[in-house]
Amino acid sequence: MDSPIEILLVEDNLNDVELTLHAFKKNHIKNPIEVVHDGAEALDFIFCRGRYVDRDPSAQPRLILLDLKLPKVDGLEVLKVLKSTEETRQIPVVVLTSSREEIDMHKSYQLGVNSYIVKPVDLEQFVQATGQLGLYWLIMNQTAS
Amino acid sequence: MDSPIEILLVEDNLNDVELTLHAFKKNHIKNPIEVVHDGAEALDFIFCRGRYVDRDPSAQPRLILLDLKLPKVDGLEVLKVLKSTEETRQIPVVVLTSSREEIDMHKSYQLGVNSYIVKPVDLEQFVQATGQLGLYWLIMNQTAS
Repeated sequence: MDSPIEILLVEDNLNDVELTLHAFKKNHIKNPIEVVHDGAEALDFIFCRGRYVDRDPSAQPRLILLDLKLPKVDGLEVLKVLKSTEETRQIPVVVLTSSREEIDMHKSYQLGVNSYIVKPVDLEQFVQATGQLGLYWLIMNQTAS
Repeated sequence: MDSPIEILLVEDNLNDVELTLHAFKKNHIKNPIEVVHDGAEALDFIFCRGRYVDRDPSAQPRLILLDLKLPKVDGLEVLKVLKSTEETRQIPVVVLTSSREEIDMHKSYQLGVNSYIVKPVDLEQFVQATGQLGLYWLIMNQTAS
């Protein structure tokens, strides 16, 4: 049996996916990761629906990295569902977005986001920041099992 | 006029207060900090009551470090008030506690904590962890102004 997924990366930009995976590798973050490309797939993963119907619903990720501008179901809607559902409210959700809009930050915090990170434009800084946030949430932060 | 407070440290253990301030200094975190020693003082600070009646309510801290076992009003109750009030839900609250109890973690996440950190017992690790969390929340994490 495969090890349960510990990181769910919700990102439609394939370049950012590649950079994030590179950043994790460079920071020795080897936790199993699943990448989904839109908000509907993210919800399917979390609630074990669609192509994730056979996933064990008790094995939730320890970290969700969530882009905001997503196809099908947008990031804020995904966040709203996750944080208004008792069973999934426990999962740390970090918004990782290029949006510096105050309204996106405000809405994210109102909906209960755990942290809001603006993607650095500089590639080297992107890799460094993504690595640091991975280490913070996977090593320092604690969640109930 | 003094610079507005950016970090509120809610901690009744004077030894841990000293260690946290030392960790911040060591990590060049120079943001203005206020230390309060119980949950009632924390709420007075945030809601500009009691000895904080003259504080500007629009200048909220960018980070609250919250111990759980506190005199007068306990940490979970402080967290509950902060996260159920629209105006204060925006403020990142990191629980920094010696409790590894699943029930404390579970309740904290249900109430909307942003992050839950168990204080390392080792002094050097405590200083390192506190410095890292300061840097993460004050430099990487973004909040609406």
